Amino acid sequence: MEDSRATSPSDGARAEAAGADLHLELSATRGRNDLVQALHESIRTGRLVAGTRLPSSRSLAKDLGIARNTVADAYGQLVAEGWLTARQGSGTVVANRAAVPTTPAAARPLEKTYRYDLRPGTPDVATFPRTEWLAATRKALTMAPNEAFGLGDPRGRPELRQVLADYLARARGVRADPERILICSGYVQALSLLGEIVKTLGGTTMAVEEFGYGLHRDVIRARGLSPVAVPVDSLGACTSELTGEGVLLTPAHQMPTGVPLAPERRTAAIEWARETGGVLIEDDYDGEFRYDRQAVGALQALDPERVVYTGTASKSLAPGLRLAWMVLPEHLVEPVVAAKRTSDYQTATIEQLVLAEFIASGHYDRHVRRSRLHYRRRRDRLVELLSVRAPNVQVAGISAGLHVLLDVPGDAEDMVARAARQGLALASLTTYHFNPTPATRQAVIVGYGTPPDHAYPGALDLLCQVLGV
Amino acid sequence: MEDSRATSPSDGARAEAAGADLHLELSATRGRNDLVQALHESIRTGRLVAGTRLPSSRSLAKDLGIARNTVADAYGQLVAEGWLTARQGSGTVVANRAAVPTTPAAARPLEKTYRYDLRPGTPDVATFPRTEWLAATRKALTMAPNEAFGLGDPRGRPELRQVLADYLARARGVRADPERILICSGYVQALSLLGEIVKTLGGTTMAVEEFGYGLHRDVIRARGLSPVAVPVDSLGACTSELTGEGVLLTPAHQMPTGVPLAPERRTAAIEWARETGGVLIEDDYDGEFRYDRQAVGALQALDPERVVYTGTASKSLAPGLRLAWMVLPEHLVEPVVAAKRTSDYQTATIEQLVLAEFIASGHYDRHVRRSRLHYRRRRDRLVELLSVRAPNVQVAGISAGLHVLLDVPGDAEDMVARAARQGLALASLTTYHFNPTPATRQAVIVGYGTPPDHAYPGALDLLCQVLGV
Repeated sequence: MEDSRATSPSDGARAEAAGADLHLELSATRGRNDLVQALHESIRTGRLVAGTRLPSSRSLAKDLGIARNTVADAYGQLVAEGWLTARQGSGTVVANRAAVPTTPAAARPLEKTYRYDLRPGTPDVATFPRTEWLAATRKALTMAPNEAFGLGDPRGRPELRQVLADYLARARGVRADPERILICSGYVQALSLLGEIVKTLGGTTMAVEEFGYGLHRDVIRARGLSPVAVPVDSLGACTSELTGEGVLLTPAHQMPTGVPLAPERRTAAIEWARETGGVLIEDDYDGEFRYDRQAVGALQALDPERVVYTGTASKSLAPGLRLAWMVLPEHLVEPVVAAKRTSDYQTATIEQLVLAEFIASGHYDRHVRRSRLHYRRRRDRLVELLSVRAPNVQVAGISAGLHVLLDVPGDAEDMVARAARQGLALASLTTYHFNPTPATRQAVIVGYGTPPDHAYPGALDLLCQVLGV
Repeated sequence: MEDSRATSPSDGARAEAAGADLHLELSATRGRNDLVQALHESIRTGRLVAGTRLPSSRSLAKDLGIARNTVADAYGQLVAEGWLTARQGSGTVVANRAAVPTTPAAARPLEKTYRYDLRPGTPDVATFPRTEWLAATRKALTMAPNEAFGLGDPRGRPELRQVLADYLARARGVRADPERILICSGYVQALSLLGEIVKTLGGTTMAVEEFGYGLHRDVIRARGLSPVAVPVDSLGACTSELTGEGVLLTPAHQMPTGVPLAPERRTAAIEWARETGGVLIEDDYDGEFRYDRQAVGALQALDPERVVYTGTASKSLAPGLRLAWMVLPEHLVEPVVAAKRTSDYQTATIEQLVLAEFIASGHYDRHVRRSRLHYRRRRDRLVELLSVRAPNVQVAGISAGLHVLLDVPGDAEDMVARAARQGLALASLTTYHFNPTPATRQAVIVGYGTPPDHAYPGALDLLCQVLGV
């Protein structure tokens, strides 16, 4: 045995025997578990290679000054786990196994860190109501029946479905029945489950607005459907061009162009669903945040048997909660429940109870009102500053949500690149386009939800510098 | 309809429709629960056989004089439980009993209420450490960086992945690297994502142990793969019969027969994966609970590049948490991350931070140790009582987990039915079999995790009465 192999000779116990020559790191207790671990380690690190014959339990016990049974037990354990092989007549041998694995592919490029981030899609997570959420958790954990910790209805906890039905009817005009609500693990899952249904029903495509999240198109593709683009103009999605077996719309506030779906197009969308039997999905991602007037009610209310309403806590509270909900037409309840069951069975129950408590206690409404005021002020400030310092920029869309679309003179991608060089993250409309061409509208999307309060003035100042030239 | 089928004509409501001709026992309230129970009973007793088409919810509602929603809800519940199948174009059909999934006891809140429930699959949710969980939540909510409330790495929070890597190495001998861990929304999602990968890689089948959860086979089917049965004997899965592009095993404690995978079969499973390049999934659902000796370490440690290790908090803490984890071979990290991203993007972050805190603070180990003692006592008591009062029953499998398999003389289904009549819920091995035949081993599975402490003696007494005859 070479001295260099002994990493800590003072603690090490040396065992030389007929079979192998072993250096084992054993703690002072020298129990069975120590021996198992030490042998594990020696095999793992390659110090003991496949085929090596180990000393007999008698001789190793003698060398280590421990009981023979202890060694026999440890060998037995390692044989059971497949590290060692016990062969009649030839003793205990290190089993044939894989080479020591290389350490991970951890080398992922870290994303560039910006001084200011005005990309859309996220609320101000710094305002997450931690204290109130903890209070609601305390109450939920105290009040929860034992069965809430088990598996239950794939639709989700009845407490939350009841509270949400009331809330959605009151706040968004949704015709909601708790029995038709399914709680899911974020909007991505809602879309994934509905895509699965469309596919199962024999569909091959799902129509999406030409501007939208690439992630959502990826979700549709992952379910085996082809996303198809529907043009968007100043009245929202062009409903005369709806097609396929499923359609995904953002009627209250087109993401990201910021226009609401015009009344006649709302009716046309419903007509399409009635005539074709297609699945019409209403993505009401930020319906709580309209600043100039009461938000347009949910499209779903026009025909609850034809529209799947989807909402989320991602904008109103935090995306990390992964809590979203669907209100389903009757004929889709069974298939969506079946798809949920084989996707993740049900969404985590404790957080559902916490959200139910959070809504029922009025915390949710208070947080939404507070956030609405907060975002409205941010938006007003942005629009005001731009009108003075970048008057060549046109603000598009309604006063709502967590982002604004700015039509810019010149090349939007260039502006985004210029902003990035100065430490400001922005998004161009192009990156939201289904199939961008040089003719795509030149616009920049500014999300004002993300920066913490202290950083907002600096972010706006830099934005005006970049856009004002 | 024959009169003889109506067991209680005076209470019965008759429904005749295009699909099936139904006679259902409904109580005066005629609520959804009554309907679920009545349908359940009709299917269980064989009055409604597999393939029978049920009336549409509209016509059954009319016949019974109840709301259509009530019928649709009841159908939805039974579809979720696997008793019925909803097929587009052919309505709702009684499912093939072989494929009836056995969901854990708690997943059936609306089912017949038993005095005692000894069905397997669920831990004692009454022991969920609410106070400690709340304390961990307080700490997690206080310490969490703001970005934890946003969207992040689809693999999950780094805090939890780090803590889990340490825990899994220490407690289960897993060769775990935080970069290769993916946190998912329960084990069902782990299997669903892996099924998706196997399918994407061009696979068509996934092999499962012939005894196991119907739910898991349904998950595999939902991903477009055909499950294929691998025989199980007293040494565990017969690894000489592994086949297809993916294999799902329960090496530490075969579910539900209770045997560990024999050492030479562990090696053979690894060999299969190396030779075929197939995805080998290790479902380590209850590895924490071995009572007679230290648990056999994870199969994954034999070749981390060939085995996907999966673990869950469902048995050690509570199924309702929907927290599970995968330790992935390097070549599967990217595809599984991509599949996770388009399924639900990431698992809810706050609960991940809470679990990380719960493990790091030592609460998890304490809870597992406490639970291990608790379940061990329950198991010992059960085995002891049976040896005296039902000596004709053979206890199979190792001393581990939350259930025990009992080989019984005579027909196991009859015993389960007799127990049910006396208010005791049990499961027969048949219901876990991939494709049960009259030759299927006659055995009853007793889950001792579920009943609250005060109910356990009564449950055991009744069990001995039923099995001891």
